[in-house]
Amino acid sequence: MGGDFAPAHVVRGSLDALEESGDRFSVVFVGPEKDIRDELRRQAGQTGSGKQEAYTIVHAPDVIDMHDAPNAALKTKKRSSIGVGLELHRDGKADAFVSAGNTGAVLSASTLILGRAKGVGRPTIGALVPTSSGPCLLVDAGTNVDCRPRHLFEFAVMGSIFVETMLGKSNASVGLLNVGEEASKGNAAAYEAFELLQKSALNFAGNVEGRDVLTGKVDVVVCDGFVGNILLKFGESVPAFLKAKLTRFARQNVLNSLVALIARGGLRSVMKELDYQEYGGVPLLGVNGVSIIGHGGSTPRAFKNMIYRAEEAVRRNVNGRVQEAMLKYA
Amino acid sequence: MGGDFAPAHVVRGSLDALEESGDRFSVVFVGPEKDIRDELRRQAGQTGSGKQEAYTIVHAPDVIDMHDAPNAALKTKKRSSIGVGLELHRDGKADAFVSAGNTGAVLSASTLILGRAKGVGRPTIGALVPTSSGPCLLVDAGTNVDCRPRHLFEFAVMGSIFVETMLGKSNASVGLLNVGEEASKGNAAAYEAFELLQKSALNFAGNVEGRDVLTGKVDVVVCDGFVGNILLKFGESVPAFLKAKLTRFARQNVLNSLVALIARGGLRSVMKELDYQEYGGVPLLGVNGVSIIGHGGSTPRAFKNMIYRAEEAVRRNVNGRVQEAMLKYA
Repeated sequence: MGGDFAPAHVVRGSLDALEESGDRFSVVFVGPEKDIRDELRRQAGQTGSGKQEAYTIVHAPDVIDMHDAPNAALKTKKRSSIGVGLELHRDGKADAFVSAGNTGAVLSASTLILGRAKGVGRPTIGALVPTSSGPCLLVDAGTNVDCRPRHLFEFAVMGSIFVETMLGKSNASVGLLNVGEEASKGNAAAYEAFELLQKSALNFAGNVEGRDVLTGKVDVVVCDGFVGNILLKFGESVPAFLKAKLTRFARQNVLNSLVALIARGGLRSVMKELDYQEYGGVPLLGVNGVSIIGHGGSTPRAFKNMIYRAEEAVRRNVNGRVQEAMLKYA
Repeated sequence: MGGDFAPAHVVRGSLDALEESGDRFSVVFVGPEKDIRDELRRQAGQTGSGKQEAYTIVHAPDVIDMHDAPNAALKTKKRSSIGVGLELHRDGKADAFVSAGNTGAVLSASTLILGRAKGVGRPTIGALVPTSSGPCLLVDAGTNVDCRPRHLFEFAVMGSIFVETMLGKSNASVGLLNVGEEASKGNAAAYEAFELLQKSALNFAGNVEGRDVLTGKVDVVVCDGFVGNILLKFGESVPAFLKAKLTRFARQNVLNSLVALIARGGLRSVMKELDYQEYGGVPLLGVNGVSIIGHGGSTPRAFKNMIYRAEEAVRRNVNGRVQEAMLKYA
């Protein structure tokens, strides 16, 4: 029941994943059974196939919506799709969990139900940011707003493993997001995190600045979730800002309006790779399980890709490798 | 001697300001006298006029360059243009100070030599950010990386006065940059600053998110200098990122290269208003004086506009109004 268009987009994306991928995995739908069956019937009618054998349904009557306070909702809505789904995963009845629901609730429930990996103080979520030379992981993307130096260090370790395992880059380079390149720069947390990173066996490239994020100078950009959230939301707002500016520019005269029309088309092509749907969602790193968290507005294509990411995370053993690294640095 | 092109750009910009503005003010050049005289001769040769009566020269042989450690340089280079210029201002021999030199040194020297205004814990610099509805002030822009809630509150007060006095907006609205709109959001400092702002007589619009900065939702966006620096540098890097993406897009085929050419032209027009030169520089708020700090790469036009900003800050009594407001909230 997660996301703004549940269960329609969840079901459509899942069926597409099953149809496209053959027998690689099966899907367990968790939510109000009748709603899911109704949706499956509607969707099957549209496509004709449905591949019924590859999915099962587990009933979970409670729905946590986007406006619910995460922790309160988890207590009062015991049988939500988030809670029941994560319990299935914990109990080995599913190999991974995927949701586009209330992010705070998915985070809390994942940490509570799956438990933290050994040596991890703060599980984290990163975000893939497009750069001039492929995607880089910005971590933490908003999960942990107040961080101690050790937490920033953990993000660096887990982020490196993510990039190496999921993006297939070896020896991922790590940059600490800061206000200057010199080791002496930064707020208190960044200053101390620099030392922890410097001493470690990570491929630490030193401090990076705000202007370095989009150049792809490093594979992993480490920051606290306060900075990460603000930076990501700022970045997401840039295309709309440019579009508004172009619209005003276009209104000035006919030539401008032609230029703006073409510019907008060019911009659209360029912006395509900023599209979160292509990647789907990112795993919560540092818990004992695979919990993939997607955008609230996830489309069927985004859900399909989230399922692929979950399958990849299991197959490539991201969790095992995170656990191994964290024990090494504990 | 401040900025990457001193003294050429400083002198040219100053002469332009004098020529354009008539008798509104005079300029005191501070720096190695011979360098200034040589430059004035070169410049006068180019334009023919020179308006010699409107400027004077005060000799300051030491030069603090961009790579000097601010506090060490201020101690060893006692007779730098920064130190001597600020002392002239403190002693009433100049009504304002303008520099595009080593930012850290200008900041430290301004605070040390001019002194902090009463009730101000942390003097601050804001940056003007273009939005869909005119400029907004992001404050702190990088001066103070570790901030207590009270400091964020001070930035809000001083930022409001700046917008009202220098940009002529009445009842400037203030937003606290945060990870969500609800009062319960944020890191510890933001959470407490929210309460201080809420209780005050400021026109507090509540929390704003990263995505709200460019929409012009508020006139003043308050954050610590760590977030401010990273956000501003990230924003500055967006045009280059888009340009690189457009170049790659253009390489794909001839049609794309035409589209990209036109798009780039459109983008350039749109980006013009992001141009810092138009505004020149922003004053350091919260010191007993007018100290305008400009971009290291300031052009003659930027210097000209910095001088105008200094003259405005004096005429509109920004400092007096900041002092009044800070005493009210002390």
